[in-house]
Amino acid sequence: MDRNDFRRQLGQQLRVDSIRCSDAGGSGHPTSSMSAADLMAVLLDGHLKLDFDQPDNPANDHLVFSKGHASPLLYSCFKAAGAITDEELLSFRKLGSRFEGHPTPVIPWVDVATGSLGQGLPVAAGLALAAKRLDGAPSRVWCLCGDSELAEGSMWEAFDHASFWELDNLIAIVDVNRLGQTGETMHGWDVSLYADRARSFGWHAIEVDGHDVAAVEDAYAEAERTTGRPTVVLAKTKKGAGVKAVEDQPGKHGKPLEDVAEAIEELGGERDLTVEISKPAPLKGSDPSPRGEGQTLPLGGRAASGARAALPTWELGEEVATRKAYGEALKALGDARGDVVALDGEVSNSTYSEIFRDAHPDRYVELYIAEQQLIATAVALQRRGWKPFGSTFAAFLTRAYDFVRMAAVSRADLKLCGSHAGVSIGEDGPSQMGLEDLAAFRAVHSSTVLYPSDANQAARLVELMADRDGIVYLRTHRGGLPVIYGAGEEFRIGGSRVVREGDDVTLVGGGVTLHEALRAAEELAGDGIEARVIDLYSVKPVDTETLARASAETGAIVTAEDHWPEGGLGEAVLSALAEAGESCPVRKLGVEIMPGSGTPDELLREAGIDAGAIAAAARELVSARATA
Amino acid sequence: MDRNDFRRQLGQQLRVDSIRCSDAGGSGHPTSSMSAADLMAVLLDGHLKLDFDQPDNPANDHLVFSKGHASPLLYSCFKAAGAITDEELLSFRKLGSRFEGHPTPVIPWVDVATGSLGQGLPVAAGLALAAKRLDGAPSRVWCLCGDSELAEGSMWEAFDHASFWELDNLIAIVDVNRLGQTGETMHGWDVSLYADRARSFGWHAIEVDGHDVAAVEDAYAEAERTTGRPTVVLAKTKKGAGVKAVEDQPGKHGKPLEDVAEAIEELGGERDLTVEISKPAPLKGSDPSPRGEGQTLPLGGRAASGARAALPTWELGEEVATRKAYGEALKALGDARGDVVALDGEVSNSTYSEIFRDAHPDRYVELYIAEQQLIATAVALQRRGWKPFGSTFAAFLTRAYDFVRMAAVSRADLKLCGSHAGVSIGEDGPSQMGLEDLAAFRAVHSSTVLYPSDANQAARLVELMADRDGIVYLRTHRGGLPVIYGAGEEFRIGGSRVVREGDDVTLVGGGVTLHEALRAAEELAGDGIEARVIDLYSVKPVDTETLARASAETGAIVTAEDHWPEGGLGEAVLSALAEAGESCPVRKLGVEIMPGSGTPDELLREAGIDAGAIAAAARELVSARATA
Repeated sequence: MDRNDFRRQLGQQLRVDSIRCSDAGGSGHPTSSMSAADLMAVLLDGHLKLDFDQPDNPANDHLVFSKGHASPLLYSCFKAAGAITDEELLSFRKLGSRFEGHPTPVIPWVDVATGSLGQGLPVAAGLALAAKRLDGAPSRVWCLCGDSELAEGSMWEAFDHASFWELDNLIAIVDVNRLGQTGETMHGWDVSLYADRARSFGWHAIEVDGHDVAAVEDAYAEAERTTGRPTVVLAKTKKGAGVKAVEDQPGKHGKPLEDVAEAIEELGGERDLTVEISKPAPLKGSDPSPRGEGQTLPLGGRAASGARAALPTWELGEEVATRKAYGEALKALGDARGDVVALDGEVSNSTYSEIFRDAHPDRYVELYIAEQQLIATAVALQRRGWKPFGSTFAAFLTRAYDFVRMAAVSRADLKLCGSHAGVSIGEDGPSQMGLEDLAAFRAVHSSTVLYPSDANQAARLVELMADRDGIVYLRTHRGGLPVIYGAGEEFRIGGSRVVREGDDVTLVGGGVTLHEALRAAEELAGDGIEARVIDLYSVKPVDTETLARASAETGAIVTAEDHWPEGGLGEAVLSALAEAGESCPVRKLGVEIMPGSGTPDELLREAGIDAGAIAAAARELVSARATA
Repeated sequence: MDRNDFRRQLGQQLRVDSIRCSDAGGSGHPTSSMSAADLMAVLLDGHLKLDFDQPDNPANDHLVFSKGHASPLLYSCFKAAGAITDEELLSFRKLGSRFEGHPTPVIPWVDVATGSLGQGLPVAAGLALAAKRLDGAPSRVWCLCGDSELAEGSMWEAFDHASFWELDNLIAIVDVNRLGQTGETMHGWDVSLYADRARSFGWHAIEVDGHDVAAVEDAYAEAERTTGRPTVVLAKTKKGAGVKAVEDQPGKHGKPLEDVAEAIEELGGERDLTVEISKPAPLKGSDPSPRGEGQTLPLGGRAASGARAALPTWELGEEVATRKAYGEALKALGDARGDVVALDGEVSNSTYSEIFRDAHPDRYVELYIAEQQLIATAVALQRRGWKPFGSTFAAFLTRAYDFVRMAAVSRADLKLCGSHAGVSIGEDGPSQMGLEDLAAFRAVHSSTVLYPSDANQAARLVELMADRDGIVYLRTHRGGLPVIYGAGEEFRIGGSRVVREGDDVTLVGGGVTLHEALRAAEELAGDGIEARVIDLYSVKPVDTETLARASAETGAIVTAEDHWPEGGLGEAVLSALAEAGESCPVRKLGVEIMPGSGTPDELLREAGIDAGAIAAAARELVSARATA
């Protein structure tokens, strides 16, 4: 059969297999798969360059399903490529199967978890950036998008950045099947409207009939030839294409077909075609890859981890902002290791990632004010073996919380820094105050949450972040804090520090509230109350042992945090005590009012988390015990 | 002086006052104010229709500063309008002043808190929608945007929806001053590029020199004449315009001017011009407004609250999903009250808001897959006196977490429902599972977090949400749960229910885990252990008294939640006990693994939160006590 015939047959096989696995799984999205089947058939046959036996080969193309619910199609492609068996395909959506309802990197040929719409294209843009700019690799990134997800703003952040970065190695394929989950999309089959938008965002746009394999071939070839800008192939398609009972019908989203046998017959029956997927040309150069054993990565300058950074140091008593320490330590880390990349959301002179930028401009990515694209780019960079450190105001990381959540599903290793935490930023007011970041980042699977109290500690924690797996979050403050730790002091993730001994009561703080706790302890000492003060710089994992000992030895604990009272440092302490089976009276101080503008000291006082409030709470606990 | 002269002078006054208040406050953004001063001068003088004495007049225009950091300019406009004194203006950024670093609705003429960029325009679109479609009011919405914030995807969600809604009463003014916080924006002064984009998104776009008051007059007049679509005025401006030391200079963002006296002199000195702001024509009709005492709102169909809804009811033992109960109760609420509006993110057949939509299509807003625009629209609707109920998957509300955070700063009254919570959704996998929603919503100031365990309870809680202030969140499940409460049973926010008595151990659950806890209690009874079971349907505020009593009377507590272990139901229990000064051994069960696909039962078991896991934890606590 001729090539177009083969591709048509392959498209039908992808439809049949999408229907079969959705039926076997008892749920899934066969109709959203069927609309894009021909688009994938042409892609697999001659365009995609991917060595399935070497999924970590940095020369590979990437195939990202931004419309993750079309997983039946993706997995059917894997089968057609000979990468998985039919039996594996039919394990779809069953417990223990790697072929989950939506794709995740548990599957070696999946770069990023999708299923929250609007995230695949931003990550694809990041992958294309990494390949082109950082790795100098020939990899193309193919990204299958849905039309519904073009309503997500994050898609337009990706459109904006991908053209700004001139990513001619990025090709988006939009499956314009007109129908969303509940009915027609905002713009239906108005493919020209999407093309106009994409062009206005600097892309090359091609409109095509997504079921005409010859036209799709031409579109891909044109996309491959296009230089200086990314291309979007806007394919008009029919949802459920090929089976009359569901084709272009509303109400057929996200469920197996009713009459599977009839549908398969209508599609010409089951097939067992295998398509030879092209392999990429081997890369030149052969540095050991941080990404996979025995693979190669092209970037000569990228050092494997191991070298210890010459961290900046500060003298005891100096007033230094932990955000400043972040920037300087990150720069030092970048000096020592070639795999560290910094990203920022147009506030690098506030987060101090500008120090890294100025020293290592080739490993700095400016995301402008697009926090979702920031996290997506970081996810992409770590996928290609880099160590991305992303920073913005803690408050603005909430803008990308869904991306962080999905990064955890992607098993991504991200290092994030949120600056300007808490009311202690002062005059800028609540819109700029990160007051929910500890809660938000604790509630991320496999996360680490760090909260340094001085500059030397912050610097060491930045170094420790680099090789920590999962989503690692560092919280920094705007204002200066006195240096209380010596320059060479060691800290470990999961640790804490008793910074003052005492047996009458324990005060637990982090960042600015540690210093307030130290002042409170001074004040209490004047009353004859000896307070133990704990620096809980590792909020997750938390030092259960030290907290349990404090509970047992002092019999009363006050926690104070520049954060809402829920989900942060105080509740981390309560959970640790519960886990240890220890208990004592605990007073949890957090920000109970909506703050306004004011000086940092005024706002700490008004919020009830300053030294006076901590001391008062401690006194209450001690005197309640005395009268008990 | 002629009108153009007056406007030029007024512009200079706005600059001078922006400089003066930033200087008095010791911080702020005078240069970002100066670029837009002429744009505001023309707006105030003849275009804006706003009765400052009746800020809640529904016929008023709205003025939204999406670039909230230009607050010095906004407040200087208020002074020029005679609404505030010079003394008040100079209280800028001081503790207790309502003139905070970024505007909030503490000020009567501010509709929404801004300062997290990219949020003002989405809310402005919602205000224009409410005025035009729900209220039938003549109000125009004027929204001053920054050019930097056009990098935020949320702005393009607003562009998309505003044209889809044909909002010719919305006029966006973009202050294209080229310079962001750290340097030049992605597109600098390429005003035509922005115009192309806006046009491709269905807007009428006008390019103008933002310092030419005559040209700005023409642009506004053209915008006011434009029908069928919103207009964006793209104004090329200079940051810091008028003062050579800062004009169009990088490095001058977000700080007072160095030489204030010289700058004021360069601007022609202080002025004391007052501009007469036009008042809107009175509205016809005079229903009592839910928005402000003594105001009128035009919509005849809108009923004041008070009528009790005829809630749906279910029989004991029926299997009903709480998401279904949400939809039916919301519809009933909409039958009883004309002020309820439902919004959904293109999943109304999953959240069941479609039941409301089908009954009250005129009070349903479809947001498609744009969760940020969903929350922004809800914020706008409540500002104009409506009771917005917004729904999508709990997981996807994370997409709009920054908008929820800022809604709290706006003192907004939102009612949100997140469906498909937890691993118990089954086969769709982790991308669709809300597992951080309790933590995220607890950590919002003034929030309420509800988590019903059966359909009758869910329905009653939906009714209670309507008149609850602040951010109210309801968590629902995908799967059916047996009805355990009678039809007329009363519940209160802040309450809980002891659904089984027992004195050996307490099991606390919510939603699906309450039913697992009940099964565990059965199992434990077989071992001679009598478990008390508490339905913690109000996670915030939480029923401290009942929990403390359970601690004292049973001496051991197991909490179980279909949520990550951090920040949710378990930590709410620990915080309540700490607050009450009560303690006992507590075992907190949550989802400790990254789930995949599987049946709900399989996933509950694998996550360690099913009846077996709860019973095992209870047995451990009881036997530890016996051997102690």
